[in-house]
Amino acid sequence: MILTFIGTAGSGKTTLTAKFGQYLEKEGHNVAYINLDTGVKSLPYTPHVDVREMITVEQLMKSGLGPNGAIVKSYDILTPHAKEYANEISKLEEEFDYVLIDTPGQMESFLFHDFGSNLMENLREPLVVYLFDPNILKNLYDYCFVRFFALMIDLRLSATTIPALNKIDIIKNELEYYKKYLDNLEYLSSRLRLDPSTQGYLAYKLCSFLPDVISSVRLLYLSAISGAGFEELETVAYEHYCTCGDLT
Amino acid sequence: MILTFIGTAGSGKTTLTAKFGQYLEKEGHNVAYINLDTGVKSLPYTPHVDVREMITVEQLMKSGLGPNGAIVKSYDILTPHAKEYANEISKLEEEFDYVLIDTPGQMESFLFHDFGSNLMENLREPLVVYLFDPNILKNLYDYCFVRFFALMIDLRLSATTIPALNKIDIIKNELEYYKKYLDNLEYLSSRLRLDPSTQGYLAYKLCSFLPDVISSVRLLYLSAISGAGFEELETVAYEHYCTCGDLT
Ligand SMILES: Nc1nc2c(ncn2[C@@H]2O[C@H](COP(=O)(O)OP(=O)(O)O)[C@@H](O)[C@H]2O)c(=O)[nH]1
Ligand SMILES: Nc1nc2c(ncn2[C@@H]2O[C@H](COP(=O)(O)OP(=O)(O)O)[C@@H](O)[C@H]2O)c(=O)[nH]1
Ligand SMILES: [Mg+2]
Ligand SMILES: [Mg+2]
Repeated sequence: MILTFIGTAGSGKTTLTAKFGQYLEKEGHNVAYINLDTGVKSLPYTPHVDVREMITVEQLMKSGLGPNGAIVKSYDILTPHAKEYANEISKLEEEFDYVLIDTPGQMESFLFHDFGSNLMENLREPLVVYLFDPNILKNLYDYCFVRFFALMIDLRLSATTIPALNKIDIIKNELEYYKKYLDNLEYLSSRLRLDPSTQGYLAYKLCSFLPDVISSVRLLYLSAISGAGFEELETVAYEHYCTCGDLT
Repeated sequence: MILTFIGTAGSGKTTLTAKFGQYLEKEGHNVAYINLDTGVKSLPYTPHVDVREMITVEQLMKSGLGPNGAIVKSYDILTPHAKEYANEISKLEEEFDYVLIDTPGQMESFLFHDFGSNLMENLREPLVVYLFDPNILKNLYDYCFVRFFALMIDLRLSATTIPALNKIDIIKNELEYYKKYLDNLEYLSSRLRLDPSTQGYLAYKLCSFLPDVISSVRLLYLSAISGAGFEELETVAYEHYCTCGDLT
């Protein structure tokens, strides 16, 4: 089973890769770790595949590029090798129970760069977990935004994508509040409907439309730090690969 | 009038800010330039406001952070000042015909970070131009993706967002092909309908739903290098502020 963690810089991809990996190992599974971040300085796990062996952002910055240019350039350099990486990962999938993929720090280097789509399209039925931070849920539109953003990732990478609220350890008291909106799209819609602004109307329309396309995708609540939600994540991964297996 | 250019690293925000500014100046307008990128090394315009006076990614990397961490940290540092920046920009709007805002190299530093939303919510009726590169249009889903992505920006920043295909100078021969799908959602839907895959169905559903929410937003075709589409961009900006004026 291959799990790919995607999210903005700081959403917890690297921490979750390490911690969820440890959890799986304790459960008796063997786990391979893949690092696709050319900019990371140190990792809390030992990667079986590490793109930094080919190129790092720091190397490129030393040759004169700014940080943004260097990040883009590093994935330009990796792109011709995307298929080789996918093959390596697929081989590891045969050997290991789980392969955990930790993606670039900046989400867009994966989502909008050929490197990401080329790699993903060469994996068999990859499952993506889209991590978002409680911090981005400021107003009601944002709840609708994260649900739709998961669909954008699904569409762009042609991969089933599960949205996951990470860092729930820091919102202990408000978790039920968040869940009320994230889990109950009907309730969210009914609240959005009361908002007379242009964006309120847009959010309402988008949110009301969501059940048409995502009826079956559940949302995960995780803490990479405390380990909350790891069992459910394991179940979701198992069900995904189970179903795929049934269909092939 | 305030125009904010948003897009992934390398989509042409900085080049367009400079070139469209020059165009407007030639047309007799006076133009203010705002740089919000803490990571850019040199700019092709002289900024009236420049966040690098407060903090740069390079400074933070010298103190030991990796590039991703340093980018995030730079916007953490700017966030408490977002409102001051918005006030400065609003003051410039009174003095200048146009204020052009060049956003962070990595789109997510603006779209997912409080700095971006706090700044935008303190501007009056900001207009956003979402730049995307022809390179990301690989398969039919991607056409649907970019149209929806513009809505995601609209929702997240509560700002009218116009999608714009940039760099049309490099796709001269294929431009009509791109337009056929981007401009005609019905045609795109009818093609997506033939795709039996899960993502094909998702793209079809999303695309068929689009006319319900974006009927009036047109798409721009630009080249920051050749100046193609600048007149239309000027018109779109004018119409946006005209309408807002009528409503207030
Ligand atoms: N409180 C809390 N902090 C977390 C959690 N996951 C990650 N972090 C912290 O968030 C920061 C970014 O984490 P990292 O894994 O490097 O994010 P990445 O950029 O997505 O790989 C680090 O300081 C982590 O310790 C979590 O579940 N709870
Ligand atoms: N051919 C072509 N190249 C462009 C265009 N706009 C930007 N570029 C190039 O794309 C690269 C990134 O541009 P830049 O403005 O720095 O992108 P930013 O990261 O979005 O600010 C540079 O090499 C530009 O010269 C365009 O319209 N046509
Ligand atoms: Mg990381
Ligand atoms: Mg730039």
